Amino acid sequence: MKRSLGPKTLLFPAPVFVVGTYDEAGRPNIATVAWGGLCCSDPPCVAVALREATFTHGNIVRRKAFTVNLPGEEHLRLADFCGIESGRTVDKFARAGLTAERAGSVDAPCVVEFPLVLECRLLKTIALGLHTQFIGQILDVKVEECVLNAQGVVDLQKFRPLIFAPDSSAYHGVGPRLGRAFSEGKSV
Amino acid sequence: MKRSLGPKTLLFPAPVFVVGTYDEAGRPNIATVAWGGLCCSDPPCVAVALREATFTHGNIVRRKAFTVNLPGEEHLRLADFCGIESGRTVDKFARAGLTAERAGSVDAPCVVEFPLVLECRLLKTIALGLHTQFIGQILDVKVEECVLNAQGVVDLQKFRPLIFAPDSSAYHGVGPRLGRAFSEGKSV
Repeated sequence: MKRSLGPKTLLFPAPVFVVGTYDEAGRPNIATVAWGGLCCSDPPCVAVALREATFTHGNIVRRKAFTVNLPGEEHLRLADFCGIESGRTVDKFARAGLTAERAGSVDAPCVVEFPLVLECRLLKTIALGLHTQFIGQILDVKVEECVLNAQGVVDLQKFRPLIFAPDSSAYHGVGPRLGRAFSEGKSV
Repeated sequence: MKRSLGPKTLLFPAPVFVVGTYDEAGRPNIATVAWGGLCCSDPPCVAVALREATFTHGNIVRRKAFTVNLPGEEHLRLADFCGIESGRTVDKFARAGLTAERAGSVDAPCVVEFPLVLECRLLKTIALGLHTQFIGQILDVKVEECVLNAQGVVDLQKFRPLIFAPDSSAYHGVGPRLGRAFSEGKSV
């Protein structure tokens, strides 16, 4: 029996994106965001949603570029920190002891210590209400060699990305592999 | 050391959305989609991306409504099946042995057997390239009582939603709870 909870942002899994931008003065900033996801295969695009009040919102509008950095389980505290503080008052890279490196393909900084980064050029800006959705065209993906398997595919047992659960406000790890897509369902 | 992989849709975690729509004749259909995510808190909105060639794309354009149904681990085979076949040629509800029920708030069908559903009114349609992004305003969330804890919060150990890993095309479960958001980072 289902219970009606009304209109809520309740969805599993949500990702943990650490969005990298430069501010007006060229200082690197990072902000943790859980509203977003992939949205197009060709051109490859990712969406991230931010409140207009955030520092990162203004940075993306101005620079028309951002990175999506994915932390591993070992970066949980740092990723959470980057979702609490604002880049207006805190140098988050310095406080978190993280290293900013200019992306190769766009005007935005990457987090050197995190295993995967999407370098994105701003493609569309969609005002929705409290949040603005920024759609970024992914110009390059960079990944640490140590999270790839012998075939060059990301191994989630090595990467161990974070998952966010909106309802309980909890972080989770990724669980065991359960099956192969476009395959398991063939026998139905 | 990071390796450059070029422009790719590589992001973890991706969700497993089973999108419910009615076709022109009023027949219910479901399609499994991994490109999507939450995109606004107020009004609560979710984005799902579909290729224009899909049956579901036309259904959403026509009906201006859809549901996002979240399967549990026990529905892996059925969810995968709904991402392989097209509703143009197969009655997926019948083949999968699933039950369609009209959503309470929008003109779209829900999957009775899946533990959580978002009922969405089409708010915006954004053509991006191969995929079109549909932004749905969430008018109601319905959830099975059995996946809620005593406080009415979704318990992921009971729900056990699916995760999709784009690179390896694998399904995963959700792993253990690792910490609390807006809390763990306060000590940084």
